[in-house]
Amino acid sequence: MTYDLVVIGAGPGGFDCAVEAAHYGLKVALVEKDVLGGTCLNRGCIPTKLWLGATSAIEELHNQAKVKVASGEVVVDFTALQARVQKHLTGTRKAMAMQLKKLGIDLVEGLGSLGETGVVSVETSDGEQQLAYKKLVIATGSKPTFFPGIEPDGDCVLDSDMFLNQEAMPESLIIVGAGFIGLEMAQVAHRFGAKITVIDAMDRVAPLEDPEISKGLQSIFKRWKWDMRLDSRVSGVKTVDGKAQLTLFDGEKIIADKALVAIGRGPVTQGIGLEEKGIELLFHQIQVNEYMEAAPNIYAIGDANGQIQLAHAASHQAQYVAAHAAGKISTPYVSGPVPSVLYGAPEVMRVGALENEAYLMDFETCEVSRAQLAANPMAQAHAFTQGFVKVVWSGGKVVGITAVGHDVSRLVTAATMIVNQGWTADDIHSIIFSHPSLDESLLMALKTERTKIQ
Amino acid sequence: MTYDLVVIGAGPGGFDCAVEAAHYGLKVALVEKDVLGGTCLNRGCIPTKLWLGATSAIEELHNQAKVKVASGEVVVDFTALQARVQKHLTGTRKAMAMQLKKLGIDLVEGLGSLGETGVVSVETSDGEQQLAYKKLVIATGSKPTFFPGIEPDGDCVLDSDMFLNQEAMPESLIIVGAGFIGLEMAQVAHRFGAKITVIDAMDRVAPLEDPEISKGLQSIFKRWKWDMRLDSRVSGVKTVDGKAQLTLFDGEKIIADKALVAIGRGPVTQGIGLEEKGIELLFHQIQVNEYMEAAPNIYAIGDANGQIQLAHAASHQAQYVAAHAAGKISTPYVSGPVPSVLYGAPEVMRVGALENEAYLMDFETCEVSRAQLAANPMAQAHAFTQGFVKVVWSGGKVVGITAVGHDVSRLVTAATMIVNQGWTADDIHSIIFSHPSLDESLLMALKTERTKIQ
Repeated sequence: MTYDLVVIGAGPGGFDCAVEAAHYGLKVALVEKDVLGGTCLNRGCIPTKLWLGATSAIEELHNQAKVKVASGEVVVDFTALQARVQKHLTGTRKAMAMQLKKLGIDLVEGLGSLGETGVVSVETSDGEQQLAYKKLVIATGSKPTFFPGIEPDGDCVLDSDMFLNQEAMPESLIIVGAGFIGLEMAQVAHRFGAKITVIDAMDRVAPLEDPEISKGLQSIFKRWKWDMRLDSRVSGVKTVDGKAQLTLFDGEKIIADKALVAIGRGPVTQGIGLEEKGIELLFHQIQVNEYMEAAPNIYAIGDANGQIQLAHAASHQAQYVAAHAAGKISTPYVSGPVPSVLYGAPEVMRVGALENEAYLMDFETCEVSRAQLAANPMAQAHAFTQGFVKVVWSGGKVVGITAVGHDVSRLVTAATMIVNQGWTADDIHSIIFSHPSLDESLLMALKTERTKIQ
Repeated sequence: MTYDLVVIGAGPGGFDCAVEAAHYGLKVALVEKDVLGGTCLNRGCIPTKLWLGATSAIEELHNQAKVKVASGEVVVDFTALQARVQKHLTGTRKAMAMQLKKLGIDLVEGLGSLGETGVVSVETSDGEQQLAYKKLVIATGSKPTFFPGIEPDGDCVLDSDMFLNQEAMPESLIIVGAGFIGLEMAQVAHRFGAKITVIDAMDRVAPLEDPEISKGLQSIFKRWKWDMRLDSRVSGVKTVDGKAQLTLFDGEKIIADKALVAIGRGPVTQGIGLEEKGIELLFHQIQVNEYMEAAPNIYAIGDANGQIQLAHAASHQAQYVAAHAAGKISTPYVSGPVPSVLYGAPEVMRVGALENEAYLMDFETCEVSRAQLAANPMAQAHAFTQGFVKVVWSGGKVVGITAVGHDVSRLVTAATMIVNQGWTADDIHSIIFSHPSLDESLLMALKTERTKIQ
């Protein structure tokens, strides 16, 4: 038997691709070496969101206590929380497996690699299995990356996978790498009372974001008494006497119960026969054309192609590839604006172009407009009023929106639609924004006077 | 001097109309008999949201405690909260007054009424003042209504204004009228530990919503052990021996510390000379044409015209009327879909047509699709998984969206855009929804199989 489609990797990209292809009537096999759901479900976004949700009362109480409206104590039982996370993950994986079964998708458990042309061989627990395919999708995802001297040892130096599997939260924590992964986990540890040190080689946190966003985050973290070591290079971190001991380039040592190294993630593309099949890799990223093809009849999606490391980007690519493989679409892939979110309190949202990107595209018509959250009654209600919404315009159209502050993730879908549709000033009145709502801060930012970027 | 525009009433409609008109270069006077901000700011949405925000940790803790992840206690100091509310209101009114001053709008404090043609007379503390106008906007808002036997006495029987001005939360509370106002306030009292009884003459809570939404709310309130007296008619409620004593038509008596009567609001349109000027009133609502005109050169907006009792609807009408009065627009007023939100936990959101409305419009092509929140990781993270999103379709286009459950207010702006744009199935893929997000439950509801309404 030859499958219409074989998918390697059952993360958000691979799983959604298999499901979508089955909906199109294709006969599909899905190959997975570990468990269904990939990093996002099992070792990433989902467990972190469960942690953030379970501890949100701590942060809400803290904010109301600061304005002397509330008092008391919220204690989160980390062991119970971890059990709840596992229960949720197990349940979700079970539902996913049932969905595969219902759709007639064959789940093949084992490490898949490219064999002879048109065949994937899978090392299953029952020996090697050969899957003949007409089309193949590589959705092998990514894993944490490190440089020499800061590799996790699983003792006191952890990567994000190990951090999520801890049995207790440390009382002090060093975060190496101030990207979204590190900052979300640091927020959770902070809520559990951990003393936080954040170290980044860049001169600001969330270095992929608008510099004003980084500044907004830093001002909040400083109020929380986080030790912010920016523009600081790490020469090494290791376990010494049951503690994480980090050494900076200048020789200074920082000691904490644990260190979380979250400096980035890289594609999982080695040792599965890709290069042997003529598939081009650049920094381990599978190079694809505008149809997401890495080679004839072979697609690569999600973190494996290195274009955008976000679960929803992988899912969106997956849906396109399923349609393309089923012959339902022949035009090149267009993602449209891809939103990104840092959850917690504060949150960050971004979609579309940053100010500097818009400036490079067309500096003559590039403008920005802003609204502070301080004026918003919902931010006031939650006693968390730091932050702002910023809109980037080019040629009189909205090309980017970003925000930092309380609950700003709620702006993300409307913002994605506005950027995708390239709203002009006239379009703003087409929609009634509910009052009161945090969403009105987006409306304010859209309506307020714009300034030209210098 | 003759004003280009005189506005009576400085609530969300009147205030926004004055500001917008001044932006168009009109010379504007704003007449207000009480304080800036109207019901919404001073006696309605804003204080309620500040109450809900300040007590949200109680609800978050409660939900995590139910799944045995968290324990502890959150105590909200009601006196401190009330002081914070007053501080916020004062600050907001001050900012509004400054905005008026900056824009050169004359604030005239006193009761305005229609005098001779083209003149508003205002009873100020310095005597009567005559304001000559070219155009007039009536934005006098609304106030709670009652029927004989259930009038508030300010002692133990309260209207929403009195309820918001309490010095302490009652330990037991009867809510007469299960609309959004009553249900939001009941949620706050519940968080403070009050025993809640809800009474409505209709057979369900939130009777303006989809019956499934009402059912969703009721199931949650029942779990909270609220005493739900639906399909129950009240013959009277009064203060007896320092308690609120309510009598049902069947003679049963219900006693609680306080009773909140929130059965509806009616326009404030009496005694200001409207009828004498030939302005038509129907059930006290000012009748307007498609340009929001009640008579030549006289507009009526917001709750006073009785079309939609929502602050953002008033603001939207205000912006239209300012543009119309300034000669910037001559086409009839079109509101587009008007969103409505019940805040709290659970929340409700609705925009566009309900199922039964769509069925009446075109029963042949009317369909619905649904997604449960239980599958959503954000609902799971907050341990509040009851609820759903429901999409109503007509002729293959989205004509309505409603939802009940944790944090569903965050869907409202995207939903308003989708209904306004009349999305078809094909449009769904134009936007990437962030993962994980509660917004994905809206995506699920849009994508899932539709059923024809029988």
